[in-house]
Amino acid sequence: MKRGLLIVLSGPSGVGKGTVCAALRARLPELVYSVSATTRSPREGERDGVNYFFKSREQFHHMMQTDALLEYAEYVGNYYGTPRDFVEKTLSEGKDIILEIEVQGALKVKEKFPEGIFVFLMPPSLNELKQRITGRGTETQATIDHRLSVAVEEMNLLYHYDYAVVNDQIDSACNRISAIITAEHCKRERFLNELFQEFASVPSAENVSER
Amino acid sequence: MKRGLLIVLSGPSGVGKGTVCAALRARLPELVYSVSATTRSPREGERDGVNYFFKSREQFHHMMQTDALLEYAEYVGNYYGTPRDFVEKTLSEGKDIILEIEVQGALKVKEKFPEGIFVFLMPPSLNELKQRITGRGTETQATIDHRLSVAVEEMNLLYHYDYAVVNDQIDSACNRISAIITAEHCKRERFLNELFQEFASVPSAENVSER
Repeated sequence: MKRGLLIVLSGPSGVGKGTVCAALRARLPELVYSVSATTRSPREGERDGVNYFFKSREQFHHMMQTDALLEYAEYVGNYYGTPRDFVEKTLSEGKDIILEIEVQGALKVKEKFPEGIFVFLMPPSLNELKQRITGRGTETQATIDHRLSVAVEEMNLLYHYDYAVVNDQIDSACNRISAIITAEHCKRERFLNELFQEFASVPSAENVSER
Repeated sequence: MKRGLLIVLSGPSGVGKGTVCAALRARLPELVYSVSATTRSPREGERDGVNYFFKSREQFHHMMQTDALLEYAEYVGNYYGTPRDFVEKTLSEGKDIILEIEVQGALKVKEKFPEGIFVFLMPPSLNELKQRITGRGTETQATIDHRLSVAVEEMNLLYHYDYAVVNDQIDSACNRISAIITAEHCKRERFLNELFQEFASVPSAENVSER
């Protein structure tokens, strides 16, 4: 059985991960989106298993303790995490799944899932990133320095990723990510694994020539 | 200066390399096609530097001796080879170049150009390949055995390639190869090399904040 790919889409704060991910899902409807678990209450219209898996704090703690999360983090008093079983189930059905996540979370996922495809979404240029951070003119020098150092830290994490995709235009970024998924399926090793499984179910040369 | 990619398209005899390569060039006009050198005489309408670089045997021997060819082979009394300088010049101009070549030649290119992207074009299924080899019903068993062993030998060379692309439909095969080229440009290492060069020419954070 063909196994799907886990695509992890990450990148520095404000680069547009969510927008690109939404556009990509609209373009590739067969691509499954990893649904996070959270302890926060559902907002109006949010559905369990679609927007989030809504969990009590007790349930979430149990998931943490049983290694049922690929990563988790606390944010404004609530927990958020990536349930491992949803990812595993999707992959074993031969479907690709995409996980959109901030850079620290992506690194945790990589520890547990090194075979994932790690894509780093980049600002259009370093110049533009610097300007966005320094150019507003209303912040103190301390705030600017802090933001610059966070940005440098986040950009440094690029070294842990397989691919870098510039988010110059949403459509171009989607094209590149879509191409990465297609190309990864063509990688020789991955292709051979699937081929050997196919070969096992193919009639032998003798049988074919007897027809 | 951004450097182009050398894409080597190969695969077993009769798999449709030429057809796929022609379709790909029509689709990606900016992709440069590697022009071979040959000692055979030009046919009507063939132009030097477009269809082939036409060379005398003396010129060709000189190229062989000065390592000016990435690979060469003799076929029906004439020499054919891949001039290194044409490939190098194209890459240094930042353009991608595709080389369509049989499997043995591709391996020779890989020795001299390991940074190339090696794409193996596959028959739609092993079953179909077997049927094409064994199924005509007019050949002797010795001929069939020879063809099968050549096919097995050629298929074995897949292990030296980076990607495998199934030629089920020309359009799908072109999509996959085009995706591979796009994805390779997004590879983190390649991206970083280009980024550092860009960074060197970007004003520093201080200069930006002074604006």
